[in-house]
Amino acid sequence: MNQNELKQLVGQEAAKYVENNTVVGLGTGSTVKYLVDALGKRVQEEGLSIVGVPTSERTAEQARGLGITIKDVDEVDHIDLTIDGADQIDKNFQGIKGGGAAHLWEKIVAINSRKNMWIVDESKMADELGSFPLPLEVIPYGSTQLLKRLADRGYNPEFRMNGSEHVLTDSKNYVIDLHLGHIDDPHALAKDLDSMTGVVEHGLFLDLVNIVIVGHDDGPEVLNARP
Amino acid sequence: MNQNELKQLVGQEAAKYVENNTVVGLGTGSTVKYLVDALGKRVQEEGLSIVGVPTSERTAEQARGLGITIKDVDEVDHIDLTIDGADQIDKNFQGIKGGGAAHLWEKIVAINSRKNMWIVDESKMADELGSFPLPLEVIPYGSTQLLKRLADRGYNPEFRMNGSEHVLTDSKNYVIDLHLGHIDDPHALAKDLDSMTGVVEHGLFLDLVNIVIVGHDDGPEVLNARP
Repeated sequence: MNQNELKQLVGQEAAKYVENNTVVGLGTGSTVKYLVDALGKRVQEEGLSIVGVPTSERTAEQARGLGITIKDVDEVDHIDLTIDGADQIDKNFQGIKGGGAAHLWEKIVAINSRKNMWIVDESKMADELGSFPLPLEVIPYGSTQLLKRLADRGYNPEFRMNGSEHVLTDSKNYVIDLHLGHIDDPHALAKDLDSMTGVVEHGLFLDLVNIVIVGHDDGPEVLNARP
Repeated sequence: MNQNELKQLVGQEAAKYVENNTVVGLGTGSTVKYLVDALGKRVQEEGLSIVGVPTSERTAEQARGLGITIKDVDEVDHIDLTIDGADQIDKNFQGIKGGGAAHLWEKIVAINSRKNMWIVDESKMADELGSFPLPLEVIPYGSTQLLKRLADRGYNPEFRMNGSEHVLTDSKNYVIDLHLGHIDDPHALAKDLDSMTGVVEHGLFLDLVNIVIVGHDDGPEVLNARP
């Protein structure tokens, strides 16, 4: 199977975990797109009744188009399960997200969820984090000074551009990618980035995911990360 | 003297500290307004040559109107001195700012400055911080969930409203004020707030200010906070 087929496999597998009458956080990205397709099918064919809480304008639009009821994270009482992709997952089930510039909203939905599931093709699994660049969502004002500050710390920062234009998040902020190579201590790095003025949110998702579904050629593998 | 006269006194006093051919960070608020007036006068009457880096749209507009050259924080190489107000200053020269909803940009300019000066009337000086509500700039998305999370921590949070509308910062975010009464350990509180997803920046300005000018009836008092 090619990478897209693996993504489709885990997207469809994850859709089976969604129970009737639940509130479901819907991530963002190419793998989640297959999940949302599969959920739309269940809504239409089985009459599955769910409320979806999207983590981006893109996902909201797709879900709405498929007839899935959508609510904002601030309109729901709780979220039962959030299903999202991930850009890299290490052997301790710590993750990097934000390749799609949606990690702020994704993290807001994730921390407000009772359970979190990540769905990935096998290429996303790694011994340690860092070969995938770590995304930061940053306030545009002062971001050039912030870039210098990040460079001084040896974090190899780079603005994410679309031609000559800054990529903008759904909250209208910029994205800086840190080309770190490897991350020795994700918690220490998270703390340092948390303390930096102008950094809205980093893409380290630590101690968050409960279940990971990995797509392999011979089928989906379900890993129980934490209770 | 009434409070406004004390503010004018320290605003005018602070303007004397600005040297020719320097880059000056310009804070926000009613006290800074008097400073900017006095700087405009020096520019016009003495030919003082400075570049001002404003911390809000309001200050930028005022400075431009007075003929002060204005540059964005990302357009300057460095900032020599930033002069700003403060809402509360404790005996260790730690401060709370953000009563004017400008503390994010103010902090970005402050941390990029070689020296920071705060100018206040004497009512702002306190033994400990916390009787002034601590402002947070927060991402609108998920802010109702964040408010609950802050309430769970016992922080007595309240959205800052203008009638039925949220007050918006220059970065188009919301403001939540924490009614804490007193803050035992500002550094521990800062760390906790830094770690909370959705909090863009809190109004604790710790270990930052070098000089404080306090307005008293019998004149301005200059306090050397830290080298």
